[in-house]
Amino acid sequence: MFQKIRPQDLQYFATQLSPEQVLIDEESLARCASDHTEDFIFLPEVVLQPRNTVEVSAIMAYCCQHHISVTPRGAGTGISGGALAIMGGVVLDMRLMNKIIKLDSNNFQVTVEPGMITEELQNTLLANGLYYPPDPASRGSCFIGGNIAENSGGPRAVKYGVVKDYVLNLQLVLPNGDVIWTGANTLKNATGYNLTQLVVGSEGTLGIITQIVLRLIPAVQHSLLMLIPFAHNHEACNAVNTICMAGITPSALEFMERDALVCAINHLQSSAITLPPDINAHLLVELDGNYPEQLLLEAEKISDLMAPYTIGEILLAQDDAQKTALWQLRRIVGEAVKGDSIYKEEDTVVPRAYLPDLLAKVKEIGAAYGFRSVCYGHAGDGNLHVNIVKDNMSDHDWQHHLPLGIREIFTYVVGIGGTISGEHGIGYVQKDYLDIAFSPTQIALMRAIKHVFDPTGILNPGKIFAN
Amino acid sequence: MFQKIRPQDLQYFATQLSPEQVLIDEESLARCASDHTEDFIFLPEVVLQPRNTVEVSAIMAYCCQHHISVTPRGAGTGISGGALAIMGGVVLDMRLMNKIIKLDSNNFQVTVEPGMITEELQNTLLANGLYYPPDPASRGSCFIGGNIAENSGGPRAVKYGVVKDYVLNLQLVLPNGDVIWTGANTLKNATGYNLTQLVVGSEGTLGIITQIVLRLIPAVQHSLLMLIPFAHNHEACNAVNTICMAGITPSALEFMERDALVCAINHLQSSAITLPPDINAHLLVELDGNYPEQLLLEAEKISDLMAPYTIGEILLAQDDAQKTALWQLRRIVGEAVKGDSIYKEEDTVVPRAYLPDLLAKVKEIGAAYGFRSVCYGHAGDGNLHVNIVKDNMSDHDWQHHLPLGIREIFTYVVGIGGTISGEHGIGYVQKDYLDIAFSPTQIALMRAIKHVFDPTGILNPGKIFAN
Repeated sequence: MFQKIRPQDLQYFATQLSPEQVLIDEESLARCASDHTEDFIFLPEVVLQPRNTVEVSAIMAYCCQHHISVTPRGAGTGISGGALAIMGGVVLDMRLMNKIIKLDSNNFQVTVEPGMITEELQNTLLANGLYYPPDPASRGSCFIGGNIAENSGGPRAVKYGVVKDYVLNLQLVLPNGDVIWTGANTLKNATGYNLTQLVVGSEGTLGIITQIVLRLIPAVQHSLLMLIPFAHNHEACNAVNTICMAGITPSALEFMERDALVCAINHLQSSAITLPPDINAHLLVELDGNYPEQLLLEAEKISDLMAPYTIGEILLAQDDAQKTALWQLRRIVGEAVKGDSIYKEEDTVVPRAYLPDLLAKVKEIGAAYGFRSVCYGHAGDGNLHVNIVKDNMSDHDWQHHLPLGIREIFTYVVGIGGTISGEHGIGYVQKDYLDIAFSPTQIALMRAIKHVFDPTGILNPGKIFAN
Repeated sequence: MFQKIRPQDLQYFATQLSPEQVLIDEESLARCASDHTEDFIFLPEVVLQPRNTVEVSAIMAYCCQHHISVTPRGAGTGISGGALAIMGGVVLDMRLMNKIIKLDSNNFQVTVEPGMITEELQNTLLANGLYYPPDPASRGSCFIGGNIAENSGGPRAVKYGVVKDYVLNLQLVLPNGDVIWTGANTLKNATGYNLTQLVVGSEGTLGIITQIVLRLIPAVQHSLLMLIPFAHNHEACNAVNTICMAGITPSALEFMERDALVCAINHLQSSAITLPPDINAHLLVELDGNYPEQLLLEAEKISDLMAPYTIGEILLAQDDAQKTALWQLRRIVGEAVKGDSIYKEEDTVVPRAYLPDLLAKVKEIGAAYGFRSVCYGHAGDGNLHVNIVKDNMSDHDWQHHLPLGIREIFTYVVGIGGTISGEHGIGYVQKDYLDIAFSPTQIALMRAIKHVFDPTGILNPGKIFAN
């Protein structure tokens, strides 16, 4: 279906790039054969590492002409399989395009290449008094370009929004090698169709992002962090909406059921908190702003709002070290849970007030199908990560029975106005469930849009749409 | 090219709708022949007023099958010609679909029909403690559906964003009559391509919006309003960025040059403010929040920041009546300016810090081409409305010479990272300038996307793309 890479193709790549950017050694191919999605391995035939847009354009034009499949790759930290080279071919490794092109502090904008590590970008900006809020758990290693492709979220979305809310403009190399900008470097834009927002979250299937213009906001000076322990899961979920309905917008509002925190504590060998036996869930609540007295007032208000619930002692982080320790626990949960067992991770999202119902439904379906789940996530957005752990489930049930349970969860989620992925993307692993979220008409529209951008279908094949 | 409406078509419409919803009387046709764009008149052949999605779907399916052009219409307050029935045919008047379907206070969401007047929606929500911020000047008469189609803005965008930032999901009737939802009712969504944001701002060319799910935020309790008079235009523009760079995010940051304010004062016969002869520009600055002491601190800080500029006495509105009077002046400027003369309104937007340069360039090009301009707008977003007034310019120069001047302005704007419409849309009147903002490749992509949604081209023909 796609042309296999031949020596003359490698020779051509080595003329457009330099030889060190054309990798066929075993180690490079193996490195680019996986991302963080379960345990999939799909070997590419060659890894290309462009340094600039001209090189990306040359690669795409050639691959389009010769019907060679191309899979773009950021840091490979994705968890829906977006970077997996399902059809072999070229992996386009963006790691050399990792610089800030222009920091425009006066306009609160930065133009950055896709291969810069998100946390490094954030730290550079903070040093200049500027804030780019979206903070996925993997920010210490993921690339900003991958975040754009997946429309990543993170805890701060509840107050600050997600990646798409910060992307003003994208330089995009189309599958045929043409280069366009999708929009303009302006806060408002009513000029033509919103190609920028079409490309954000398109999971590397419409084009290669080569420059990103982000809007920034002023750095925020102060924050408070509270850890609230609950006796009951559903009360923790109810408390989420209670806080929001009171007019408070925390800068993070995270839920962890007991098992999630236990995994994290064990993984880090952490002594940051105690975990009494009667506590079954926690909310991690962050408040940020420029007026510390105001934050204390809001923290007190939250404390008062917890009156109807059975809670333990609220921990208010006393210093930066304690804040860091608490956040470390929360951010390591995903990795910790996965380290323990074979797993599948679902990324369900519902209207926020239905979170308790979602959690109850997940546990109910789990009991019916015989699987255990560890749940945690961005409760303030109604986004619950459901890690289904294999434990002692038979391989047969894991392959054939569990997907039916997942379908039930997704059908329930969509039925209450939610959808099947809040931040991780569809990628490779959720393709077969897309029909739960979308009618045939919607899917046909999306396939047709894909065809507009990529008529020969060489870019990131095997993603989003079922075969 | 399109089929003219025949008696059998009218009969069919009268069976799908009721006869009172099928209008061919002179008055109805005339009402729907114009919007607020200059003085264009394009008579439709029939006006249809659907009451629900089923009726819209039946109309579109029939018109698609019979190749009848359909132009959707909100309140007809648009100023780029989006509602003009360029090819006659059907005007689809959405005014009967004007209800709130569901107010979901727990989830901070509302599902509303497209024909509800924006300000009525906002007032209903406020009465429930909820806030939908986007506030175009025409909000007292425009429809929320039209706002979605145009991705409308308004003064509050500087702090709260524009319409697109509040749209979670849309029910859309495709040109062939199929009905889809574009997304999900969730704050985060990484499931498939972002059809929702593709449709927002697509100016009624991709489908008919029949239901809108908006996200809401808690109502804000307090605000302050300051009017700062400047001796010099460019200093007022510079002050905009000074305020933003100081980390203050006003809830409105509006610029008016002297002529704009004079028009407004005369139009309203207002005595709300005095206008000394040495004052040439104003900034209207609003600060909002839940902590009044904090607002006063910020107002003082803004006052201090004005030290380098030659200003008059800052007016701090003392009560709601004075706030209303000041806002009335600002909001009436557009109408007031247009009442005075034949005009063309441009809606340029640039990165905010370049606003002084844009203003200077507009005046320079005006001097070169012999036209006078009245400038005002949403300075906090870098969005300057440029009203070019005909005054004594000859008809010939107005038709043939002025567009060259406008092209120069737009070319300059795009060259500094801006674009040609910040909130009004391309519609009918800006089509010929689209090539300044977009390369042939970008335009081809957008045309192809249009073709995906509307293969037979019956929906709102003659808009966005040049012929």
